[in-house]
Amino acid sequence: MRSRISVQDVEDAAVGGAILGTGGGGDPYVGKLMAQRAIEQYGSPEMIPLKEIPDHKIVMIAAGIGAPTVLVEKILRGDEAVTVFKALQNYLGKKAYAVMSAEVGGVNGTIPIAVAAHLKIPVVDADCMGRAFPEIQLVIPQLYGVPATPLIMADEKGNSVVLSTINNEWTESIARAVASKMGGMALMALYTMDGKTAKRATLPAMLSFTMKIGKTLRIARQQKLDILSELLKVTQGVRLFKGKIVDLDRRTDKGHVRGVAIIQGSDDFGGQKLNMQFQNENLVARTGEKVLATVPDLITIVDQDTCFPITTEGLKYGLRVTVIGIPCHKKWRTPAGIALAGPHHFGYDIPYKPIAVRGGTRRSHAASARN
Amino acid sequence: MRSRISVQDVEDAAVGGAILGTGGGGDPYVGKLMAQRAIEQYGSPEMIPLKEIPDHKIVMIAAGIGAPTVLVEKILRGDEAVTVFKALQNYLGKKAYAVMSAEVGGVNGTIPIAVAAHLKIPVVDADCMGRAFPEIQLVIPQLYGVPATPLIMADEKGNSVVLSTINNEWTESIARAVASKMGGMALMALYTMDGKTAKRATLPAMLSFTMKIGKTLRIARQQKLDILSELLKVTQGVRLFKGKIVDLDRRTDKGHVRGVAIIQGSDDFGGQKLNMQFQNENLVARTGEKVLATVPDLITIVDQDTCFPITTEGLKYGLRVTVIGIPCHKKWRTPAGIALAGPHHFGYDIPYKPIAVRGGTRRSHAASARN
Repeated sequence: MRSRISVQDVEDAAVGGAILGTGGGGDPYVGKLMAQRAIEQYGSPEMIPLKEIPDHKIVMIAAGIGAPTVLVEKILRGDEAVTVFKALQNYLGKKAYAVMSAEVGGVNGTIPIAVAAHLKIPVVDADCMGRAFPEIQLVIPQLYGVPATPLIMADEKGNSVVLSTINNEWTESIARAVASKMGGMALMALYTMDGKTAKRATLPAMLSFTMKIGKTLRIARQQKLDILSELLKVTQGVRLFKGKIVDLDRRTDKGHVRGVAIIQGSDDFGGQKLNMQFQNENLVARTGEKVLATVPDLITIVDQDTCFPITTEGLKYGLRVTVIGIPCHKKWRTPAGIALAGPHHFGYDIPYKPIAVRGGTRRSHAASARN
Repeated sequence: MRSRISVQDVEDAAVGGAILGTGGGGDPYVGKLMAQRAIEQYGSPEMIPLKEIPDHKIVMIAAGIGAPTVLVEKILRGDEAVTVFKALQNYLGKKAYAVMSAEVGGVNGTIPIAVAAHLKIPVVDADCMGRAFPEIQLVIPQLYGVPATPLIMADEKGNSVVLSTINNEWTESIARAVASKMGGMALMALYTMDGKTAKRATLPAMLSFTMKIGKTLRIARQQKLDILSELLKVTQGVRLFKGKIVDLDRRTDKGHVRGVAIIQGSDDFGGQKLNMQFQNENLVARTGEKVLATVPDLITIVDQDTCFPITTEGLKYGLRVTVIGIPCHKKWRTPAGIALAGPHHFGYDIPYKPIAVRGGTRRSHAASARN
């Protein structure tokens, strides 16, 4: 079903995107302002279902690359992504039928909305991950052999780069180095696909899902419902942990924000400490030797009271938080999906187990039911 | 005067280029083999004087970028530069009338010869420095506002990047990071100029000058002349120091080779130590507090017996060497030239003084006369 994206939808998508963004994908406040401004200036863009892209038409992805810590400092106007998007159209000599998200997330989920508004083309109700990931090749299209290049990236100063590579790992390596030189982040247009490919190789209904999550949280707050229960229900998530951030080691290097947060448990989790490792996104959550959840499953930290998502760059000492786990899309749970973006890829010698079968999760299921 | 470049010319140009390359510009043996192979395969290219480029035709530069230490490991076949050169022609939608050198040097002076042979276009008897320098913007064209971009760079694996930037400093910053990711070095085509611009903004007769230097050394060796005297005569150089390398700190990082060599003096220089700092090229030569020479003047280390040039990646503990100084081109000695590529640019708090007016030089002049 085609629909128009309202200013309220943008806010919901930014918040819901940050829930599924697992700490990455950008700050929802920054993402909201950028896309709302585009809508105010150019009108509401149309959101179309994935299946409505004609097979022979092309879609292109617009996204930010770099450390989210930088994005909060270098606020986007919204038209930077339009510039690279148009540059990629010129490079290919083709117009895009629609624009799509690389990932959900506070900013990377809303950049395509801004581009769609500006260029008066539809935004596709889909994304390439159903979550956020910190590397260009960590997308479902990679599982289908779709090249990220030609990729065009640019900074706000006027520097731009066109990449053509032999595979998406090389694209990631070179684009990351360029983003780092461009001041820690850049905008890019990439993963051009025809409709036929996009329908196979991307995940439908993800943009509307982020709107649904954001709306659920908004309504739950307004109606003073149990916000966490509502969040777990809409995301099919489980509560993994609850506590206070008592230690935080975070650094921005090589175009990523990396680090670890230690959360001292409270209530049912009293006496335990959760160790959360992240690289833009939350990667592995452990209490002592016990692994509660790993990529590609989604691990999200939210504010204990409001359930507002907290991105990795927003983590602060003393914050009282709830950690939730959300099952990843089933395409990530294939052997190829786990090989691509499982714990081993990020250097952890931990086998991937779905969040539902990990011991900690059943306990948390029970705990969340009691909450 | 137009002429054909012979296999012998290539060897002379590689050796003479490495003399003027001041430690950088690539290993002359690698450069010689690459260009000689191209000539054997495709025939001798024509060398044309700078003034013979028609005003409205374009010339493009082909060069390597990266750490010379890597170049010795990743030997070029010679056609990698052809690929980027053709890619830049395609990008611009124009054929180059001729190919030119960014710098003299063992490899960067011979890459254009290989490209010229392969594409059956002339190579221009000119370069952009009259020496070698380790950064893209450190060229005479920079003094005339000539942009390096569009720049295309590629590695031997098949990855390529097109850069468009707001200035040549940004080009250097981004291209260096890409070269580093591409395995420490890459090939590039850049500094497209029309004939009118090239005639103003580049240095004529540099390729034939490198051939002349190489030939002078070759003849002096064959005829058992005083090789050093012949070298100083043809280059208008002076002997700065003589001794043995007793310490060497060299590292390859961020796409450069950097370090310092300590040379223990012998003969007239007994009891002194020369400190030579380099970044791909030799930058500053000092004995204690006394500065013997700095960029943009040329400082070259040669073997004591053969006067064969020793590149910074070829420096070895125990080598017995002579250090010579050669005045840079007068365009480097303008205030703008010194600001661009003088000692301050490389982080040295030393004023630039022409090699002829530095005290150490007069002494060396006398010393070299006694040699």
